[in-house]
Amino acid sequence: MSDFSPDSTLPQPLTYSAAGVDLGRADALVGHLRRLAARTHGPEVTPYTDSYAGLYQMGAGGPLLAASCDGVGTKLLLASRLRRFRALGQDLVAMNVNDLLPCGARPLFFLDYLAAGRLDPEPLTELMEGMVAACQQAGCALLGGETAELPGVLAASALELAGFAVGLVDSSLTPVLSKLAAGDQVLALPASGVHANGLSLARRALERAGLSLEAQPPGLAQSLGETLLTPTPIYVDEVLGALRRGAGEVHAAAHITGGGLLGRARKLLREGLMLRLWPDSYQQPPIFRIIAQAGEISAQEMASTFNMGLGFLLCTSAAGAQRILAEPQTPWLRVGEIVTGAPGVDLG
Amino acid sequence: MSDFSPDSTLPQPLTYSAAGVDLGRADALVGHLRRLAARTHGPEVTPYTDSYAGLYQMGAGGPLLAASCDGVGTKLLLASRLRRFRALGQDLVAMNVNDLLPCGARPLFFLDYLAAGRLDPEPLTELMEGMVAACQQAGCALLGGETAELPGVLAASALELAGFAVGLVDSSLTPVLSKLAAGDQVLALPASGVHANGLSLARRALERAGLSLEAQPPGLAQSLGETLLTPTPIYVDEVLGALRRGAGEVHAAAHITGGGLLGRARKLLREGLMLRLWPDSYQQPPIFRIIAQAGEISAQEMASTFNMGLGFLLCTSAAGAQRILAEPQTPWLRVGEIVTGAPGVDLG
Repeated sequence: MSDFSPDSTLPQPLTYSAAGVDLGRADALVGHLRRLAARTHGPEVTPYTDSYAGLYQMGAGGPLLAASCDGVGTKLLLASRLRRFRALGQDLVAMNVNDLLPCGARPLFFLDYLAAGRLDPEPLTELMEGMVAACQQAGCALLGGETAELPGVLAASALELAGFAVGLVDSSLTPVLSKLAAGDQVLALPASGVHANGLSLARRALERAGLSLEAQPPGLAQSLGETLLTPTPIYVDEVLGALRRGAGEVHAAAHITGGGLLGRARKLLREGLMLRLWPDSYQQPPIFRIIAQAGEISAQEMASTFNMGLGFLLCTSAAGAQRILAEPQTPWLRVGEIVTGAPGVDLG
Repeated sequence: MSDFSPDSTLPQPLTYSAAGVDLGRADALVGHLRRLAARTHGPEVTPYTDSYAGLYQMGAGGPLLAASCDGVGTKLLLASRLRRFRALGQDLVAMNVNDLLPCGARPLFFLDYLAAGRLDPEPLTELMEGMVAACQQAGCALLGGETAELPGVLAASALELAGFAVGLVDSSLTPVLSKLAAGDQVLALPASGVHANGLSLARRALERAGLSLEAQPPGLAQSLGETLLTPTPIYVDEVLGALRRGAGEVHAAAHITGGGLLGRARKLLREGLMLRLWPDSYQQPPIFRIIAQAGEISAQEMASTFNMGLGFLLCTSAAGAQRILAEPQTPWLRVGEIVTGAPGVDLG
């Protein structure tokens, strides 16, 4: 596990690709794999496209299930280095249950896969405690899982995690993308930090600037390591609450994960529509500025990798926005609008 | 990835624990983790005990879902070394969908988690082709998954796999363990080989005897490497067919996986009942003899690690056995009986 190995061959400025993750190449391969998987799809399946969960119809008129699968990426390295795993357990649950929300599904249950070179009770117990608390917050059962000891596959101290969540779709809550139109408003839930995406780029940037994980640059309330480990929020109650309040008026929803704010917001858009964000409408956690400066990373590259402070987006009619924002102490922010234009995102 | 590193400190004879996997320690930790997870269980959950899948009741009178999660263990190392991944894709599906069968669940869908140090199209495409064919055979949809590039977590050429399956329980097919009684018959489906359990012990044993993966000892139709890579059969049609034919008469079912034939069969038994196998009633694939001789492994240790040629067990009344075995060209073998005695397994 060489999470901070120096690399003198890095180009200027730093990109996610140079940090070892090539999203374009990955997307092409994943597209090919999905076309193969489609051979197994009958009429009961609404396949993954740019959505976050696969949809399975249990018989005509039966329940519509949504299923997601995700890991925590290289956030594992950071947690392993700092020997702190509780937050990572929450990340694993959050990455999965939040992915059920864009289609209007309520999480029913979660399963975890934990593999280790050697089963060490301390990290695995911390992980499980984090997962249990997160499942309780998400209102879902931690139904089971697999705990595997894989000597030779993983180094003794190394871990690998994957999660899997199943939810029940309430189709009255499902956003109707065909209704997305100029004049719609963009609402967002604040992110707690980088969540579990872009950690490879973040680590490389800090390393290049000679910033240690123990450092606490101005603006941070904790060390860099602790700040990066801040867990992804469980957005279940906030999103399902907003979908209920705005029912019929919500036209699109996005969990901002791989591909960052730009990638995820762009996938929402139909031909002829642009998403314009109002930069002064939300606060970016200071960690993003610190990463960008440390790695001399362009604003475009940052927003194609990180959530930039916005963890979840909803696009809704003005009437829907009013209903959602009328809730006392609403966590939702009005952060932008849909306008006519070439499909894309204007960061403002 | 040091899959065949020599280790001169091995005790005589070889055990699974000495090969790096301590099932007793793992069981204790997993028990602790499961007790934590139980904090998330409401009345809708029938938790994992010694069963293979978690059960989730979707509302009173609603569908009962079964969910499983499993990987392929260190069979990954062998596939990576031989650069053959198609069979491994089938193993990943089989380990999960076969785990749905003991409770009488029909697989609905499967999701995969594939992580790699670097996304290399060839192994991932082979894996996906294997998974697709296996899902088609299991009659389930490959609904989605996650393909993650994890530089720094995994070496460039290293892979990690996890699978998840969800099935629908037909409670008229669920074995009723309380009816298990002396005089019941034990039926089995033949294994294709070691399946995806005990590979660490198998590798260590062959290595110790100086047997290369390319060797083809007497009795094998293929090289040792190819023989070990033989995929786990998809038992869906055979098991659900038998549960239907024997409905009401089947009292217990076991997918023979971690813990081997002894561990899995023992977990079926109630107080005062012993499972006696008839050793001449089935053929052990020759690979088991080769592994045992190479590692000087005791019969007890072998049967506590490997399936010993029996991939799936059913315990049924004599009437149920007759109905199941009456099917033309049935794959089921009558391999033993339930007798009174201290709970345990008599290998004969």
